[in-house]
Amino acid sequence: MSPVLYVVGLGPGAMEQITQEAQGALARATDVLGYDLYVTRAIALGIPEKTTIHMTDNREELDRARHALELAMQGRIPVVVSGGDSGVFGMASAVFEAVAGGPEVWRDIDIRIIPGVTAVLSVAARLGAPLGGDFCVISLSDNLKPWDLVARRLRLAAEAGLVIALYNPRSRSRPGQLDLGFATLREVLADSTPVAFARAIGRPAEQVEITTLARARGESADMSTLVLIGCAHTRVIERQGQNPWLYTLRRVP
Amino acid sequence: MSPVLYVVGLGPGAMEQITQEAQGALARATDVLGYDLYVTRAIALGIPEKTTIHMTDNREELDRARHALELAMQGRIPVVVSGGDSGVFGMASAVFEAVAGGPEVWRDIDIRIIPGVTAVLSVAARLGAPLGGDFCVISLSDNLKPWDLVARRLRLAAEAGLVIALYNPRSRSRPGQLDLGFATLREVLADSTPVAFARAIGRPAEQVEITTLARARGESADMSTLVLIGCAHTRVIERQGQNPWLYTLRRVP
Repeated sequence: MSPVLYVVGLGPGAMEQITQEAQGALARATDVLGYDLYVTRAIALGIPEKTTIHMTDNREELDRARHALELAMQGRIPVVVSGGDSGVFGMASAVFEAVAGGPEVWRDIDIRIIPGVTAVLSVAARLGAPLGGDFCVISLSDNLKPWDLVARRLRLAAEAGLVIALYNPRSRSRPGQLDLGFATLREVLADSTPVAFARAIGRPAEQVEITTLARARGESADMSTLVLIGCAHTRVIERQGQNPWLYTLRRVP
Repeated sequence: MSPVLYVVGLGPGAMEQITQEAQGALARATDVLGYDLYVTRAIALGIPEKTTIHMTDNREELDRARHALELAMQGRIPVVVSGGDSGVFGMASAVFEAVAGGPEVWRDIDIRIIPGVTAVLSVAARLGAPLGGDFCVISLSDNLKPWDLVARRLRLAAEAGLVIALYNPRSRSRPGQLDLGFATLREVLADSTPVAFARAIGRPAEQVEITTLARARGESADMSTLVLIGCAHTRVIERQGQNPWLYTLRRVP
């Protein structure tokens, strides 16, 4: 049997938003590797009793990936876990970076990426249907890319008329960037463009704030927030005593 | 009890890629509405024996949405089904368009959008980790928007360095547009940019072709194909006797 390694997306947080395929991978694990928050969630979802737990800091992704590949070569069944989908700012890319820089035999490992519901999908479902047209997903973190590039991408995405989903919008080390991002977008998009801040969707601390680009403030977001910026075809449906629904027209006139 | 309407994403096709939440909604259905292919899949996944089936053509989305809203007002529990995620070129947006143009009382309906694994996630998982950086999702169909806008979006997305996922890349009525799209992208991106054609991923007819932008031809795609175009930071890992893996660097130098 060739060595096997699973990289699993656990979905946005609610237990019932994981796929059966992801649950099946967890059930086979001899080792679970990941950031504390996601390993804890994997344990709650159900892993075999004797599974070895490897919790590591969120910034040690490449080390974690190499460790998982080594475990696979030893004949164990490692499962690397990410929140949402592991391919979207999760662990999948780190695993292949490790493979590319590692020994040739790692290319024979049967690496099974198990997709999951990524945050932009659960947030959109909670808000209505804001992704009804074309859209993009951008990480606002400049840990991995220069801020100039982030700003340039925001401007071009807005010029293209794409709905924009921002992952990692804010952290303690860069409190001002989201406001810079909004300022960039205001140069292209109308003041009335709908903006949503969706925090911890699918988890008990869930919070939604819907506003306009003119009024949007970075302080409404933290690292658990996904920020969604509409386009010229995003509409608001007001409702009594509840958050309005957002949706984007399928048809562009 | 307030009237309720479910809009459910069934995932990419494999039974085990549906969420428990979606399965739970199907189990409550008094009525299932959708395009034949997805209703058939919902039946296979398990719906109550007495559920009424409403199969309609894929182009009658707004009528189907109104019908579901009317059923909800009658106290029934309609479940509208889409493949993948209903928010991504699925039925969710049509439902809110119907609400916006419908009677005021429809705004009191408890509309529950149940997210699912959309095609770009299952395709990326099958290929490796091509969505490791920022990306966009664009429908190539010009049924709903003018071709000039599609081409403009492709150009700006390529200039932004986004990985590009194309839904609905080709149909019998517009066989030449994907080649026009590639021609537009060649004006911005390097000839060596990786391009993947992923057909019917997660289903028995699954097929993957990996090539470069210089060699990509529209005839490799049909309506069941998702086309993924890498960016300058997308890498290929060659493997003996198997498709190469694609991944996009998390870090932009």
